[in-house]
Amino acid sequence: MTQPSTNGDNPASSGRTPAQGNRLDPWYDVYADRAHNLRASEIRALFSVVSRPEVVSLAGGMPNLKDLPLDRLAASAEKLIRNHGAQAMQYGSGQGWEVLRERITEVMTYDGIVGADPDDVVVTTGSQQALDLVTELFVNPGDVILAEAPSYVGALGVFHARQADVVHVAMDEHGIIPEALVETIRDVRASGRTIKFIYIIPNYHNPAGVTLSAERRPIIAEICLREHVLIVEDNPYGLLGFHSDPLPAIASYSPEGVVYLGSFSKMFAPGFRIGWAYAPHAIRAKLVLALESAILCPSMVGQMAIADYLSNYDWYGQVKSFRSMYAERCRAMLTSLEEYMPSCSWTVPDGGFYTWVTLPEGLDAKAMLPRAVRAQVAYVSGTAFFYDGTGSNHLRLSFCYPTPEEIREGVRRLSTVVNTEKEIVDMFGTASGNEAGAGSDR
Amino acid sequence: MTQPSTNGDNPASSGRTPAQGNRLDPWYDVYADRAHNLRASEIRALFSVVSRPEVVSLAGGMPNLKDLPLDRLAASAEKLIRNHGAQAMQYGSGQGWEVLRERITEVMTYDGIVGADPDDVVVTTGSQQALDLVTELFVNPGDVILAEAPSYVGALGVFHARQADVVHVAMDEHGIIPEALVETIRDVRASGRTIKFIYIIPNYHNPAGVTLSAERRPIIAEICLREHVLIVEDNPYGLLGFHSDPLPAIASYSPEGVVYLGSFSKMFAPGFRIGWAYAPHAIRAKLVLALESAILCPSMVGQMAIADYLSNYDWYGQVKSFRSMYAERCRAMLTSLEEYMPSCSWTVPDGGFYTWVTLPEGLDAKAMLPRAVRAQVAYVSGTAFFYDGTGSNHLRLSFCYPTPEEIREGVRRLSTVVNTEKEIVDMFGTASGNEAGAGSDR
Repeated sequence: MTQPSTNGDNPASSGRTPAQGNRLDPWYDVYADRAHNLRASEIRALFSVVSRPEVVSLAGGMPNLKDLPLDRLAASAEKLIRNHGAQAMQYGSGQGWEVLRERITEVMTYDGIVGADPDDVVVTTGSQQALDLVTELFVNPGDVILAEAPSYVGALGVFHARQADVVHVAMDEHGIIPEALVETIRDVRASGRTIKFIYIIPNYHNPAGVTLSAERRPIIAEICLREHVLIVEDNPYGLLGFHSDPLPAIASYSPEGVVYLGSFSKMFAPGFRIGWAYAPHAIRAKLVLALESAILCPSMVGQMAIADYLSNYDWYGQVKSFRSMYAERCRAMLTSLEEYMPSCSWTVPDGGFYTWVTLPEGLDAKAMLPRAVRAQVAYVSGTAFFYDGTGSNHLRLSFCYPTPEEIREGVRRLSTVVNTEKEIVDMFGTASGNEAGAGSDR
Repeated sequence: MTQPSTNGDNPASSGRTPAQGNRLDPWYDVYADRAHNLRASEIRALFSVVSRPEVVSLAGGMPNLKDLPLDRLAASAEKLIRNHGAQAMQYGSGQGWEVLRERITEVMTYDGIVGADPDDVVVTTGSQQALDLVTELFVNPGDVILAEAPSYVGALGVFHARQADVVHVAMDEHGIIPEALVETIRDVRASGRTIKFIYIIPNYHNPAGVTLSAERRPIIAEICLREHVLIVEDNPYGLLGFHSDPLPAIASYSPEGVVYLGSFSKMFAPGFRIGWAYAPHAIRAKLVLALESAILCPSMVGQMAIADYLSNYDWYGQVKSFRSMYAERCRAMLTSLEEYMPSCSWTVPDGGFYTWVTLPEGLDAKAMLPRAVRAQVAYVSGTAFFYDGTGSNHLRLSFCYPTPEEIREGVRRLSTVVNTEKEIVDMFGTASGNEAGAGSDR
């Protein structure tokens, strides 16, 4: 029993050395190929810095929950556990609780999705899990996913972990450009590669802060249908338009061509980790199987709490109060930018959490970040939002979490750094920041 | 803009037909290879049947939550949201809340894991997610995972979805057999295949109902360390021994060689979907990245509720009351089997939820299932617990959820089916059930 066995492992395929593993990680030689594709995002590297109280963070995407009616929510939680605890604390269906899926179809009517069947909804652990499972379902290593330029850092992380290649499609102030989409599809296919889907954030884009125009929505739907390219429409911010309900979702034009992802994290609260996918029937069926394999079922406690909130609160009234709160913060951001950073340009959002800033030529947002943090302000470098690490002359500023006063002070601090960098560039033709390291490994 | 593009997709690699997709699923041609590995488990196929009130289900693994102090838990939930709602409903750390990770290291001392660093713990969406992420980290398509014969159906589902091959290792009433393990490792490697880890449920095995003996634990740890085979030790039932705390975990013998998976689903409640992995440092770091990609972070509400339960309740006293409740149900199961099903044999569990029944020769548990359901009793066929679909002369009976009276009645009903089948086999040499279909697609 105790003789060493013949080792039939193939060293070429496992990268195994006779020493087995290494001193830091004895299992280094055993990982799957895809494990080496997991990297900390630029945003993650900021977490420790951002949590210092003296830093004004214009980096994060945390919603402001201070205005939620906590006392009433506390009473609801008490009632939920007392009256339905045995159900709330038990396993549930893998697809999600039917009552919540009914409520979700009602929420989607605000997106112009009318008459959705609750059976075509899957409840997920945040919409991040929906995105991960869709990617799992469709992407073989090396397959191409199309995404706006720039695109959500958390989505790019999923695509990287799932060994996809991402090709960006140009966007302007009206969102993704139809002509650019057609050309990109043609170019990618001409190069012999397979496109699996296009990932689009139509409303109040993260990080670009722009919205796909009403005119372009049916055009994008039609191009993708004709070209047999599935659309993954990610809509966490849709209800947070400053002035109105969202434009009709792309899914409303092409129900069989779109997997629509929704989330309660921005319009209510992220701590329950409840999102959803609304998908064509056959895709929905596979999503449920993938979800069951990943987590068995979503949290019943979280689902019942959300369903209770949607059924027994004026949730849309709360959304409207969130809208004015974020609109005020956005105004604080834009007026501060006008006052302090006239050498930059930026997008003007109609909703959501973000504006996308273009730096003066020659400035590098990634290289500049350590200086900004030293000046006690944080942002996310534009490089986080491009698969190939370009975008260094952009940065994302968020106005969701800090107060208007903090936003103003944050932008003022940032302007001192930008102005100093600009002076150096104007004098020497380059900023020295590149040598300082960017405080990030992505 | 509107001309059809040249389609450069390779039909050989995408399986694409000119018609694109099919009538039932227009995206059929677009899925990843692994999507075709997702299948409904035999257990899932039972869900609709089992929920009928007239059926006694000896099939499920749902814990009995009726004895939880719901009124007190309701008051705790109220306090949690009222005083800490803004934190509980916000995003949290991807690794999990530090306070809960501290409590988890205390829970693991009951398993003989002393002095664990909370930094080596990752909080997951149930231990199912921990298992899925470990498999993601280590398994390339075609890699081998070793597992006991039989093994947990939910784990086999993950391994299948992740395109692993599973090789079973023989077990007896003392758990996995060391000699069989050594031989299996040798045989698999001799065939040129790569073993990535061994999956073991040491305590009150699901479905086998047996426990890995104290003598074998250090031996298994030593074999795997010597052979450079990582151990994934899954321990959801450890605290639910009828007479005692669990034997020391394999991880206590080989902390650098084991990823230990824990769960609050059986000792407290599954509805929060909170489990954990305790792993060697480098693996833990990769698990956090994989988790962030999959769901950003685990639910703060769930984590804070569990931490509160561990901090402010006599949770171990509750575990002891669960133990006697399940011990009584197990006794009801075993005495009923003795009385009604003397033609079968079964394992005698010291804890947990399950006993593993061997049918008289010639009987087929999968083929018999429709007849059992017609007789208003449900079980899980042994075939669910083998990767290759063998095990048809076994079935799993669970005693966790039904009352002792229901268990007795369920076994009585089952015995009528078994006795009829046995008479037919004795008369004709075979039961006719195979033609009836098994009500399952796995």
